[in-house]
Amino acid sequence: MATIYDQGLERRPANYAPLTPLGFLDWAARVYPQRTSLIHGARRFTWAETARRARALASALRRRGVRPGDTVAAVLTNTPEMYECHFGVPLAGGVLNAINVRLDPATIAFILDHGEAKVLLVDREFSEVVGQALALTTRPMLVVDVDDPEYAGPGSGLGAVEYAALLAEGDPADRFDPPADEWDAIALNYTSGTTGNPKGVVYHHRGAYLNALNQAMLWGLTRHTVYLWTLPMFHCNGWCFPWSMAAVAGTNVCLRRVEVGAIFAAIAAHSVTNYCGAPIVHNTMLAAPEALWATVPGPLKAFVAGAAPPAATIESLARRGVDLTHVYGLTEVYGPATVCAPQDEWAALPAAEQAVLNGRQGVRYLVEEGFEVLDPDTMQPVPWDGTTIGEVMFRGNITMKGYLKNQRATEEAFAGGWFHSGDLAVVFPDGYVKIRDRGKDIIISGGENISSIEVEDALHHHPAVFAAAVVAKPDPKWGETPCAFVELKPGAAVSEQELIDHCRARLAHFKAPKSVMFGPLPKTSTGKIQKFVLRQQVRSASAIE
Amino acid sequence: MATIYDQGLERRPANYAPLTPLGFLDWAARVYPQRTSLIHGARRFTWAETARRARALASALRRRGVRPGDTVAAVLTNTPEMYECHFGVPLAGGVLNAINVRLDPATIAFILDHGEAKVLLVDREFSEVVGQALALTTRPMLVVDVDDPEYAGPGSGLGAVEYAALLAEGDPADRFDPPADEWDAIALNYTSGTTGNPKGVVYHHRGAYLNALNQAMLWGLTRHTVYLWTLPMFHCNGWCFPWSMAAVAGTNVCLRRVEVGAIFAAIAAHSVTNYCGAPIVHNTMLAAPEALWATVPGPLKAFVAGAAPPAATIESLARRGVDLTHVYGLTEVYGPATVCAPQDEWAALPAAEQAVLNGRQGVRYLVEEGFEVLDPDTMQPVPWDGTTIGEVMFRGNITMKGYLKNQRATEEAFAGGWFHSGDLAVVFPDGYVKIRDRGKDIIISGGENISSIEVEDALHHHPAVFAAAVVAKPDPKWGETPCAFVELKPGAAVSEQELIDHCRARLAHFKAPKSVMFGPLPKTSTGKIQKFVLRQQVRSASAIE
Repeated sequence: MATIYDQGLERRPANYAPLTPLGFLDWAARVYPQRTSLIHGARRFTWAETARRARALASALRRRGVRPGDTVAAVLTNTPEMYECHFGVPLAGGVLNAINVRLDPATIAFILDHGEAKVLLVDREFSEVVGQALALTTRPMLVVDVDDPEYAGPGSGLGAVEYAALLAEGDPADRFDPPADEWDAIALNYTSGTTGNPKGVVYHHRGAYLNALNQAMLWGLTRHTVYLWTLPMFHCNGWCFPWSMAAVAGTNVCLRRVEVGAIFAAIAAHSVTNYCGAPIVHNTMLAAPEALWATVPGPLKAFVAGAAPPAATIESLARRGVDLTHVYGLTEVYGPATVCAPQDEWAALPAAEQAVLNGRQGVRYLVEEGFEVLDPDTMQPVPWDGTTIGEVMFRGNITMKGYLKNQRATEEAFAGGWFHSGDLAVVFPDGYVKIRDRGKDIIISGGENISSIEVEDALHHHPAVFAAAVVAKPDPKWGETPCAFVELKPGAAVSEQELIDHCRARLAHFKAPKSVMFGPLPKTSTGKIQKFVLRQQVRSASAIE
Repeated sequence: MATIYDQGLERRPANYAPLTPLGFLDWAARVYPQRTSLIHGARRFTWAETARRARALASALRRRGVRPGDTVAAVLTNTPEMYECHFGVPLAGGVLNAINVRLDPATIAFILDHGEAKVLLVDREFSEVVGQALALTTRPMLVVDVDDPEYAGPGSGLGAVEYAALLAEGDPADRFDPPADEWDAIALNYTSGTTGNPKGVVYHHRGAYLNALNQAMLWGLTRHTVYLWTLPMFHCNGWCFPWSMAAVAGTNVCLRRVEVGAIFAAIAAHSVTNYCGAPIVHNTMLAAPEALWATVPGPLKAFVAGAAPPAATIESLARRGVDLTHVYGLTEVYGPATVCAPQDEWAALPAAEQAVLNGRQGVRYLVEEGFEVLDPDTMQPVPWDGTTIGEVMFRGNITMKGYLKNQRATEEAFAGGWFHSGDLAVVFPDGYVKIRDRGKDIIISGGENISSIEVEDALHHHPAVFAAAVVAKPDPKWGETPCAFVELKPGAAVSEQELIDHCRARLAHFKAPKSVMFGPLPKTSTGKIQKFVLRQQVRSASAIE
C-alpha cells in the first residue's frame, strides 16, 4: 500500500549512485594525491599517478574496442599493472578475469574460451604457458604484454602491444560513467569447485564495494596502512583489498612471489603493517631465520584463510608479535566472508586454548546477511552443540551473482535461498562456526583449490588405471596435498612415479598427486567409491607419521 | 545490449539483501551479546538485551497497529528508550520522527500533523510543551510516556501507556522481515530550512546503512569505543551514530543534557573515548575547571560540526589531548557528509596555521559521490583559488530521499542533479572546501538551525513593527544568535526587551533575537531588504567588540 513516503521521493541523480569501488580511487586521488599508492621494486607511484594510469588504461581499452560486459583476462602476478587492472578494466565497463598464474595451458585455454575474453594481459614470466594456451583457444583476442622490470627470467613477448604503449594510447581525461547498475559484473574468478571444469564466479560492483569497506573496517585500515601483497590478486581479487586500499589511501607493496627473502626485505624497507595469506604463507615466514625476524620494524597484523591455521602457527606468530586474525570464505563469497572475531576474555586463557578458539571460522562479516550451518535436507540450523554437523551456507550482498553460463550449477548452489558452500561444520555454544570437513572433494593445497575429480580424470587417462580416487592428505607445508588411490586393470603394472609424471604432464604441477596407493577401492553396494573410507585411512596414516 | 553477464545471474534471496542498519543490531547481539551496549545512570544493558528490547518495541508497535510507512514520533532526550527507537521503530516498518525537544508547542504540533504521526513517545520532562502541542494537533495518535529514572523534575504522564508496559506487550521472538526495499524510509527529520515552516527530510535504509559504516570507518570505531551522547539523537539521528555503534558493538553512554558536571562524570566513570557536538559543546567543556579535566582517564576523540570551530577551540582542545575532527553537513545529507581529512604534513605547522587548515569543511565522505562548490547558474565547479565563491552541492547515496509532501521544495533542492545546500563556499588549491557564508538566511545557534524568516514573522506580528529583518550575529558561546533589525511604524514606540519577550512568547526561546536594532532598513530599488548590508553591519560591530 502506498504511503506518504512513496510520493515524490524517488531516486534521482542527486540522491542515488550505483555502489562501485571505482569511486574509491577518485577519492584517494582527490584527498591524498601525493601519498604513495604502490611500491614495486624501484618503481613507486602516488595516488594521483595510479588514478591517472588506471584512467589511461580504461581509455585505451575502450579505444581498442572494449565495451560494457566484455571480459578482460589477466595472467599477472602482484604488480602495479595488476593493481591498475582492478580499476582500469571495470572503469572501461569491462569485467576483470584474473587467472591463476600456476594453471596449465589447457585450463587457461578453457577459461579464456569460456569467459569469452576480448583482451588478455600477460606477464612475460608466463609467456610460454600462455602461448600454449593461446594455441588451444578458439577465439581471437588482443594480447597485451607486461614486461615487469622486477622480472629477469626467461620469456618473451606474445602480444600485439606492450602495456606501457597501451597506456599511452589512452587519455586519462576521458569521461567515464559509473556502471549502469551496481549489479553489473566487475570481476570473473574461476574456481575448480567440486567438478572437473572450472566454474566462473561472477562478482558485481555492489558486492566489491561492500566487502572492500568491510575489510577496511574490520582491520581498521588507514592511510598509514602499508599492505604487503603476499596474497595473489588473482585469488578472489585479493579478497577485495585492491579496492580497500584505495578506500583508505594506504600504500600497497607489490610482490611477485611468496619468497622469504623478498617478504622480509619488503617489510623492513617499507615498514609493512598488514599482510594476508593461506597458512603456507605464514609457515614460510615462520621458517625464516631469527635474523630476518629481527629486521621487522614494527608490529604486524595478518589475516589467514584458505584453511584453518594450525594451533602451532597461531602460537608461533603471536610470539613474534604478529596479530593474526582468522577469516574464512570461498571464491563465491568474494574471498573471506566470516571472521573469528576475538573476544577480550580469550586473552586470559592459555595460548593453546586461545589457538583452538581462534582456529574457528567464527561469525559472519557485517556486510553479509547470513552465515549459518544448516541441515541441507531441512534447511534448519543445527543445534549449537559443537558436535552436530551441517553444511555451511551464506546469503547476502557479498555472495556471487552466480556461475557464468552455468545455470544448472547456479541453481544448485543457490537452492533454498542460500549459497551452499559444500563445507561441513558445527556451531559451538557461543555461536562460532568450526569447519569439520572441507567439502567432499576439494583439496586445498597452498591456498589453492584442487578438484579431486580433475586429478582422477587425469589418472583415468592412463592405460593401466581401472579406477582412481583422490583425497586430501594433511601436509605440514601445503596444508593438504592430493593423495591418489588407484586400482589397476587386471594384469597391468605401473609405478607410483610413472603415474605422478603422467599427471604432471596433464595438469598444473601442484595438482598432481604427491603419493599413490595401489589396491582395490572400497565401494558401496551400488559401486560408488567410498571416499570417506580413504580419507580416514590417509588421516590415520598421517597421524601416525 | 545484453552480454553473457546478463544471463541467469539475477538477484535472488541468496545473493541480495536490502541494505539496512537494522542488521547491525543482530550482528552485535550475535557476536558480542554480553558486551555493554548502553549505560544510563544506574541502568546498564548488554547488546543481547538491547536487541531483545528493540524487538519487543517493534512487536508491540506492530500489535498496536503500526504498519510499514507509518510515522512514529519521539520527543525524547538521549536515553536508552531513544536508542531503542532507532532500531525498534524501523524494525516494525515505521519511520522514526525524532523531534527537537526545544521546539515550541505550535511547531511540534505542525510536525506531528504534517508527518502524520501514528504514535508519539514523549519524555515526562517535555509533557507540558507536548501536551500543549497535542491540543493543537488535528490527528489522533497513541501517546507513550517515557519516565526516565534519571529525570527528577516536573512533568506528568500524558499518554495511554508507559514505555515499559508497551515493551511488555511485545514478543521479541516475533519474525521481522527486512524492509521491502532499501530505498524505504527509515527516519524523518524536520529542519527549519530557509523558510518559516519546517521541512521534513526523509532518510532511507540504504543511506543510513552507508553513513553508519562511513562514520565507523572514518573514526576507526571498535568494540572498545565508548561513545558519549553529547550530540542529541534527535539531531539528524545523532549523525547515524546509533547505528554505527551497533555495527561495532561498542558502548553508548547516554546523557540527558549537555551539562559540564554530567559530561565529565560520565567520561571519568566509563572511560569515554569519543564524543560529538557543535562548537558550543566543546566550548562548554573547555570552560570547565582544570580539576574536571584532570579526571579525564584517557585520550578523547571528538567530532565537531554545526559551525566551523573557532581556531581557539581547536587549539585549546589539542592542548588538552582531544583529537578533534571537523566534519560538516546538513540534515539533508544525514548529518555530516564531509570531513576536514587531516594531512600528516600539517602536524609540523604552527598551531594557529593548523587551526586554520582544520577549520575548513574539507572533502567528501567516502560514501557520498559528490561534494563540490558549483556556480549555481552554470553548475560548473568554481576554480580552486580560495577566493571564488560558489554554492556547496552534494550528490550521492547519503543525500535525502527528499522533503516529505513538499514536491516543490524537493524539486528546487535537487535541481540540476545536485542537492543545493544554500551554503556559499570557496575551494582552496588543495581541493579543500571552506564555507564563507552559511546560506542566506539561516542562523545556527548552538548547532540548531533558526530560520530568520520565522523570527521575522514573529516580529511582524507586533503592532509597532513596520518591517523586520533578522540576521546571524557571531557569538562566542552559541556560534551565532539572531539579531533583529526593526523599522517601527510611524509614531509607534516599543523597547528592545518588549520585542524580545514578544518573540519568546511565540517561538522556542532559543529562536528569539538576543538584540534588536532600530532604524530604517536598507532596501533595494525594488523594495527588497538588503540583508547582506545588515550582516556586514553586525560583523563589523562584532569585530570591534
